Amino acid sequence: MLVLGIDPGTATTGFGVVKAEGSRMQAVDYGIISTPANMDMPDRLCLIHEGLVKIIAQYQPQMVAVEQIFYHRNAKTVITVAQSRGVVLYTAASEGIQVYEYTPLQVKQSVVGYGQAEKRQVQMMVQRILSLKEVPKPDDAADALAVAICHLHGHRLEQIYRSEL
Amino acid sequence: MLVLGIDPGTATTGFGVVKAEGSRMQAVDYGIISTPANMDMPDRLCLIHEGLVKIIAQYQPQMVAVEQIFYHRNAKTVITVAQSRGVVLYTAASEGIQVYEYTPLQVKQSVVGYGQAEKRQVQMMVQRILSLKEVPKPDDAADALAVAICHLHGHRLEQIYRSEL
Repeated sequence: MLVLGIDPGTATTGFGVVKAEGSRMQAVDYGIISTPANMDMPDRLCLIHEGLVKIIAQYQPQMVAVEQIFYHRNAKTVITVAQSRGVVLYTAASEGIQVYEYTPLQVKQSVVGYGQAEKRQVQMMVQRILSLKEVPKPDDAADALAVAICHLHGHRLEQIYRSEL
Repeated sequence: MLVLGIDPGTATTGFGVVKAEGSRMQAVDYGIISTPANMDMPDRLCLIHEGLVKIIAQYQPQMVAVEQIFYHRNAKTVITVAQSRGVVLYTAASEGIQVYEYTPLQVKQSVVGYGQAEKRQVQMMVQRILSLKEVPKPDDAADALAVAICHLHGHRLEQIYRSEL
């Protein structure tokens, strides 16, 4: 099973494609879609859409996992991140892919086993779970891999639970 | 000149198509794109996109005007409105239409001549400016017409200013 994790943002949208076979997970690809700061917002949102469409066409993930927005103290940041997130959700749905949403707490709990884990701990666990040689960079790509792992964990636990019913 | 004003939202996105000939403005069409509350967010965002694409294809506006988000006290509302707004901005840009953004203050100042005007005053001025028989309903459609009027006012003033240089 192939899951595309996404960490939405205006300047950088992180993505991580993770493949699961049994309990083993593997990073197929990860990185960021970046947009120039001097570009108008509508055009930046177009770039994010186009970037995602390409990634989806290339890897054909069965599911998309997106982190829910943390209520930053900065209202302006919340608004721009949410605008990008809207385009991400729309793009996945328009490509016919089911979208799953997770809170930051769920992601940390799932990846580190501890909801209050720090960013660095999450990144190190992402590296270990995916058997990567180094911590995935940049941060937005690591966050995208983390939400994909969170989704796959939950999906696998659900399957184990069902098989034992 | 034809301008499409949009008031983004998840449950209802207001739209208003306004035509300007000299100083005269006329409402060509207005209404809302509504999405069912029990539908998943990504699918709702798809409906908003599809609705806008249809309106743009039907009227072929030269410009789109969108109100900037007021920082509501409710962070959850800000996030869902911003997600819809992201899809609106993306959709206009993907259709090759220039997008203009105005603060609520600018819209009120432009339509009523008073930045602290109340909703009801804005609606009555929209009715008067567009020579409508009654106040346009629902509220989101009236708000969309208001932001279109705001854009056309500014555009006209700019033309007058330039012609006198």
